[in-house]
Order: sequence, then C-alpha cells, then structure tokens
Amino acid sequence: MSTVMSGAKPRAVVLLSGGLDSATVLAIAKTQGFDAYALSVAYGQRHLIELEAAARVATQLGASAHQVMHVDLDVVGGSALTDRNIAVPQSPSTGIPVTYVPARNTLFLSLALGWAEVLGASDLFIGVNAVDYSGYPDCRPEFIQAFERLADLATRAGVEGRGFRIHAPLQYWSKKQIVEKGTELGVDFAQTVSCYSADDEGRACGRCDSCRLRVEGFIAAGIADPTRYA
Amino acid sequence: MSTVMSGAKPRAVVLLSGGLDSATVLAIAKTQGFDAYALSVAYGQRHLIELEAAARVATQLGASAHQVMHVDLDVVGGSALTDRNIAVPQSPSTGIPVTYVPARNTLFLSLALGWAEVLGASDLFIGVNAVDYSGYPDCRPEFIQAFERLADLATRAGVEGRGFRIHAPLQYWSKKQIVEKGTELGVDFAQTVSCYSADDEGRACGRCDSCRLRVEGFIAAGIADPTRYA
Repeated sequence: MSTVMSGAKPRAVVLLSGGLDSATVLAIAKTQGFDAYALSVAYGQRHLIELEAAARVATQLGASAHQVMHVDLDVVGGSALTDRNIAVPQSPSTGIPVTYVPARNTLFLSLALGWAEVLGASDLFIGVNAVDYSGYPDCRPEFIQAFERLADLATRAGVEGRGFRIHAPLQYWSKKQIVEKGTELGVDFAQTVSCYSADDEGRACGRCDSCRLRVEGFIAAGIADPTRYA
Repeated sequence: MSTVMSGAKPRAVVLLSGGLDSATVLAIAKTQGFDAYALSVAYGQRHLIELEAAARVATQLGASAHQVMHVDLDVVGGSALTDRNIAVPQSPSTGIPVTYVPARNTLFLSLALGWAEVLGASDLFIGVNAVDYSGYPDCRPEFIQAFERLADLATRAGVEGRGFRIHAPLQYWSKKQIVEKGTELGVDFAQTVSCYSADDEGRACGRCDSCRLRVEGFIAAGIADPTRYA
C-alpha cells in the first residue's frame, strides 16, 4: 500500500458518531492499512447514548485511540438534535430537515484536522452519505472537496507540503451497500446506535428518519437487523 | 448602507478574543452598521484572562450579545497555548511559532458560522492579520477566501442562496494602523489583553511575540500604551 511508511502504519483520524455509517467507515480505514484514531464529538446532542456506542465500536474494531471532544453547540441551538424545544420528526421529511445542525460537519472536520496535525496524520475519514442524506448540505461531495482544499491552506502541514486527504468512502453508497460492507468487515452493528431519539438503554424509536433508513438498509441487504427497538 | 434591511440592522457574528485586534474589529463591524454578536471561544488556552477581557470589550463597544463557547482543544494539545508542557517563547521566533494552535481559525470560523445560521446573519468578522502574523497559515487571505467558499457549501443558508461574507478588515494593516483605527473608534485598549502569558490580574509579560507586536504598534502610532505590565 503506497501510504504505508517504513514499516509503521500511517495514522488516520476517523470521525465516529457511534452510528452504523461511521462504524463501517472505521472498519474501512483499518482495512486500508491505517492506524485509526477515532474522534467523537459531544456537542450537546440529545442522543448522548451514541457516545457510549462509539466507545464500544472503537474497542470492537481496534481503534488505536478513542477521543471524545466536547463543544457546547446547545448554547446556540437551531436544531432538533441540540435544542429540546424542537421536536424530532417521527415521519419522513422533505428538504433540509430540522435535525440539520448548523455547520456541524465543518466543525467536526475542524476538530479532526487539528488532532490530525498533532498526530502527524494526513488522512481524515468521515461517514457522510450524499444519497441517503441529500437534505444535509454538509454531506455533499462538493462540501468534502472544499474542506480538503481548505485543510491544506489552514495548517502547518499544508504549508509544509504535506496535504490532507478527506476520505468519504460511503459518499455514493446506498444504506444496503453500507450494511453489506460493514457486515463483511466484521462490524458488530448491535453495538451501534443511529436513532435520533434513542432511550437511555440505547433502544431505537424505529420511526425517525435515521431509524427508517437503517431499517430499510437491513431489509434491502437481507441481513437480520440486530437493532434493539423500544 | 446596502446591507441594511427594512429598518433593522443586519446581524454579524464577530470573533472576539479579548485582544487588541478583535476589539478593533468589533468596533469596525458596529461602524459598518451591523448588530454585532460577539463570540469568544474557551478552548483550553492558558490565557483565560482573555475571556474576561472579551466580556468587558463586548459591553464597552455595545455588542448585542456575547457568547462564550467551550471546546476542549487541550485534550489534543500540540501548541504552547493549550499545552503547559510547551513553553511560550520570550523572544522573537521565525517560521510557524509554537503558539500556533492546529486548525484554530478553522474551528473558530466553524463555530461562528453555526451561530450565524441560527441568528440569520450572513456576515462573519475575524481579526486575522497576515502582515504581523505571517507565521500562522490560517491568518492568510487565501485561507479566509477558502473558508468563505466552504461556508456557502456547508450550510442551509448557502443552499438557499444566502451566501456568507467573511470580513477580515485588518488583513493588510500594520499594528500601528490597528491601534490608530481602534483609538479613532473609541476602543478602550486598557480593557484588552493580548499577552500569551498574562498573569491572573491580566498584566502582560511584555516579552512574548504578541506583547512585542502590541508595544511596537503603540510606539509607531505615537499613542500612549495603556497596557498594564507585570
């Protein structure tokens, strides 16, 4: 593999929410030969149970480290995920959903970029998916490409000629393909939580946009859904 | 002013560190007719006294709100400003200094962008200065331009055709010009703290890079330096 340097594996920072997609991305990064440093962000989200799921997934898949960083996005609100006065929809929505968190992926990638510089890593992985989540502007390929350009201008590493690569391996995949790939790579999906309104035991509501897409993914893949529902 | 809408002033988010530069930027934003929302970031920096300075500056200059957001960048370290094991230099440095915080301005602008979306603001102000701080990659004009492009791709507002403007009014100014403009606009520089190693009373060391540039600015402007030195 061209990115392996002098025997040591190259490092990569992998954004890990604790959901199905980012768990699969972590498994992909490992398969590609990276020493994976998993980063989760506690940003005042309702579904804190995700962070416990992220810790389990990081351990299960052999991440070299799992770092949780805290940002109090809830002080500005503006999303059903960070503001308890905005309800999480229980039926499909069109357009940009109220679960959109303003500038979330820009923030997540900024945190990943800073940690990557400290680690000497040139590779960042993020589980965005433009097909399923076309409503989120910061999941689009053009956003990811723009961030990759920004990263080279923003950092010491970029100035010194070591550019960054933002990997978004799920970008054009269906949920079916993600479930299939994760299963093939040994991801224990029972450990993951995708639901926007999971209860304190991590049981999913089965009705929100995120649950619906996940359920449909398992059905389409013909793989038994290990998710625990409330 | 073309940006004033139907009687109400347009809102702008102004990144406010509590130092001389960002205080001047806040005054400039007000002069340009904006309702200024000041944003300070507690990111584990040594000089927390800056945040108290920021609160005083926001009040003195009539910001409509002052929000402090918290991010624990100190958990990854990598900078003399966030890692107490790395000393702040007491003499001029060349190249990218150890006070460089990996991806800091990318992070700050991400937080400002998210708040701006919630506020319905299209304008962000940041006090970067490519002349004095040429060692910091994320103070360069090309970085600011790249972030402006990213902001339009990253957000609901961008998708809906309301683009963002990133204002960096100090970009090409000398410290002398900044001191002169701030003085002209009524900034009380005695309230600001620029020092990387200020003591608990906010008294400056007078020796770090940041102090040195500030001292030279007041001398060049022929304006009495109100800074309290330890």
